[in-house]
Amino acid sequence: MMSRVDTDRFLADLHALREIGRFKTGVHRPTYTPEDMESRRWLCDRLAECGLTPTLDGIGNVIGRHPGAGPHLLVGSHIESQNEAGWLDGALGVVAGVALARAGLPVDVVAFADEEGHYGGFIGSRSFIGALDEAEIDTLANRTHGKPLRQALTEAGLAGKPRFKGDPSRYRGFLEMHIEQGTQLEAAGLGIGVVTGIVAIRQYRIIIDGMQDHAGGTTMAERRDAGLAAVRLLAAIDAEFPRVCGPRSTWTTGRITLEPGAPSIIPGRAEVLFQLRDVDPTIIARMEAALAALIQEHNRRDRCPARLEPISLSTPAPCDAGFQEALAAEAEALSPGCWQRMPSGAGHDAQWVARVMPVAMLFVPSIGGISHHWAEDTKDADLALGVRVLAGAAARILAG
Amino acid sequence: MMSRVDTDRFLADLHALREIGRFKTGVHRPTYTPEDMESRRWLCDRLAECGLTPTLDGIGNVIGRHPGAGPHLLVGSHIESQNEAGWLDGALGVVAGVALARAGLPVDVVAFADEEGHYGGFIGSRSFIGALDEAEIDTLANRTHGKPLRQALTEAGLAGKPRFKGDPSRYRGFLEMHIEQGTQLEAAGLGIGVVTGIVAIRQYRIIIDGMQDHAGGTTMAERRDAGLAAVRLLAAIDAEFPRVCGPRSTWTTGRITLEPGAPSIIPGRAEVLFQLRDVDPTIIARMEAALAALIQEHNRRDRCPARLEPISLSTPAPCDAGFQEALAAEAEALSPGCWQRMPSGAGHDAQWVARVMPVAMLFVPSIGGISHHWAEDTKDADLALGVRVLAGAAARILAG
Repeated sequence: MMSRVDTDRFLADLHALREIGRFKTGVHRPTYTPEDMESRRWLCDRLAECGLTPTLDGIGNVIGRHPGAGPHLLVGSHIESQNEAGWLDGALGVVAGVALARAGLPVDVVAFADEEGHYGGFIGSRSFIGALDEAEIDTLANRTHGKPLRQALTEAGLAGKPRFKGDPSRYRGFLEMHIEQGTQLEAAGLGIGVVTGIVAIRQYRIIIDGMQDHAGGTTMAERRDAGLAAVRLLAAIDAEFPRVCGPRSTWTTGRITLEPGAPSIIPGRAEVLFQLRDVDPTIIARMEAALAALIQEHNRRDRCPARLEPISLSTPAPCDAGFQEALAAEAEALSPGCWQRMPSGAGHDAQWVARVMPVAMLFVPSIGGISHHWAEDTKDADLALGVRVLAGAAARILAG
Repeated sequence: MMSRVDTDRFLADLHALREIGRFKTGVHRPTYTPEDMESRRWLCDRLAECGLTPTLDGIGNVIGRHPGAGPHLLVGSHIESQNEAGWLDGALGVVAGVALARAGLPVDVVAFADEEGHYGGFIGSRSFIGALDEAEIDTLANRTHGKPLRQALTEAGLAGKPRFKGDPSRYRGFLEMHIEQGTQLEAAGLGIGVVTGIVAIRQYRIIIDGMQDHAGGTTMAERRDAGLAAVRLLAAIDAEFPRVCGPRSTWTTGRITLEPGAPSIIPGRAEVLFQLRDVDPTIIARMEAALAALIQEHNRRDRCPARLEPISLSTPAPCDAGFQEALAAEAEALSPGCWQRMPSGAGHDAQWVARVMPVAMLFVPSIGGISHHWAEDTKDADLALGVRVLAGAAARILAG
């Protein structure tokens, strides 16, 4: 069933898609905008060219179904972009699916809607696996301008169309090719990342209560300074987490808000946005236990009590071991020694699809690690190698 | 020259002034508003009642001049309020001056304009000592709504009036009675604070530069997290400052701004509002040297360099030793053992007047330390004791 991928055609398809909603060297295709819908129609045409049967469904997902008997693989990603963002994020995985279809591989190709979260995040892949109900659609609205999702679906001509639910029994599994959005591959001089899994993201709000007071009239001994308490707690996390984390764990404080935030007022309240990520549930559990213990210890000795409020708690999505082997074998065959295994620190549609079938992801390098910005880019040679490895691995999986 | 202060009349004057711009149990008299100007005209009438010659000058200062031969004391404070704030902050010191004048003491009474900084801060006391020129007045505007100071002066009927410059040779010095705006006196069960000096406030911006990156794709070892660097530096200050500070030093971080401030983005820049206060220049110098050393040490080991930008650097204003003795002697006579010496952690008009003549300040307790809020209050007995101590001390100084 193997045939060679036409990498020139693959790059030509990618560049054609880049013209839709072009912004500087990137694209501006927010979900359900005219540009996004144009890209979905463009994709339907490409899928038909390959002999697949395209469907644009009621949530905006495009699915191209292969006419032949199984086994099949599902290949794809998302096609909309962040605002004024890069041309490869999402689009690469979709066009890679087209390339595998053009090469005659028995694949269904999918472009999920709104992975980027203009309306909710992952609503296309969640709809595909049956994890998005009508009641939730009623509640969602655009995060920037507030337009209700229902209105956006109507304006995009999607209201009333059925939503397509994938049949897991049809597929050996799902493959998603993506740019790395980091600098690990570039720094190591490697061309391919075989993804071991998609990290869990545990997002918390740490709230610390103190007593707002005048910075001149209140002695240090009297104070209950919520901001200083936050600094002490975050310094303790900084000291302790390296002892309990795994080799690729990350933890990040993205925002510290002191209230009222004036130069001469002792903060009465502090709010910290804190998250941790790892691909290994055991390590996640260890880090969360350490966080809980640090807060308990803080509350035993500090005058300003801290509490932890979960904002969102995703679970890790491990990639299928056999699929990883197929990707690794093909990478080693085509580019010996120039690949590595690595977790995905960012979220992807594959983490939802993994709930119903085996998944795997392949990363190619991002120049300078730039992502979610129009300057995002990857060398043509890396793009071409990536799609060849993906095709070879797909053939290995389908033959297996 | 001594005569008894009529404390009932003093309290009646205070309550009459409280009705002008009343807000709940406090007042709303921002500088140059109709309510503020009404309070200044009210004061002129009271001063005339006492036999003083009142002047409302071109910056809004009210000065009531005693007709007799010297020596004189200048007594007063400010009369405008913060927004929706307390009835005593400022007003107390002005009405105390009226009470001393009513008691026949040879005092000039002053109400300085805009100590509260609606337009600039201390512009009345700075004008009085000759430290505010016309060019600066041209540049000032309301901090809330942006109205130019010149326009506010015109609307208040003050444009074109001369500004009154005080003649230091006329005065033995300046006395300002004020609420404590803290809880030191209340906590110690004391009625009088003899102020040793007004602290210097050294206000800085600490800026830390890092590298903005995706929180998922960037390993801990690669990061240049400006927010984490800020936490480490502030924790180091928290550990080191207690070793170099004085008994009443304070230091405060009022705001921490991480950019861009999103949950999944490593902060590329951190900005910290940091201030320190002390009444002793030697201690200020020691703390500032420690701060500079901590930043230097930080920059030697951290990947995110920090730098210190001064925002405003005031100097301490010590109170006159002889005046303090007079206040202390009178406090001990009227309320034995129920007073203490203490610095003022907040700024006051007296710190500017101190540049041209000796000054002293007397504090009375603030209930619950509440200030800059309409709930601000002080017990009648504490107000009455305070004005009696002030009058007695004034008599001692004038007799000295």
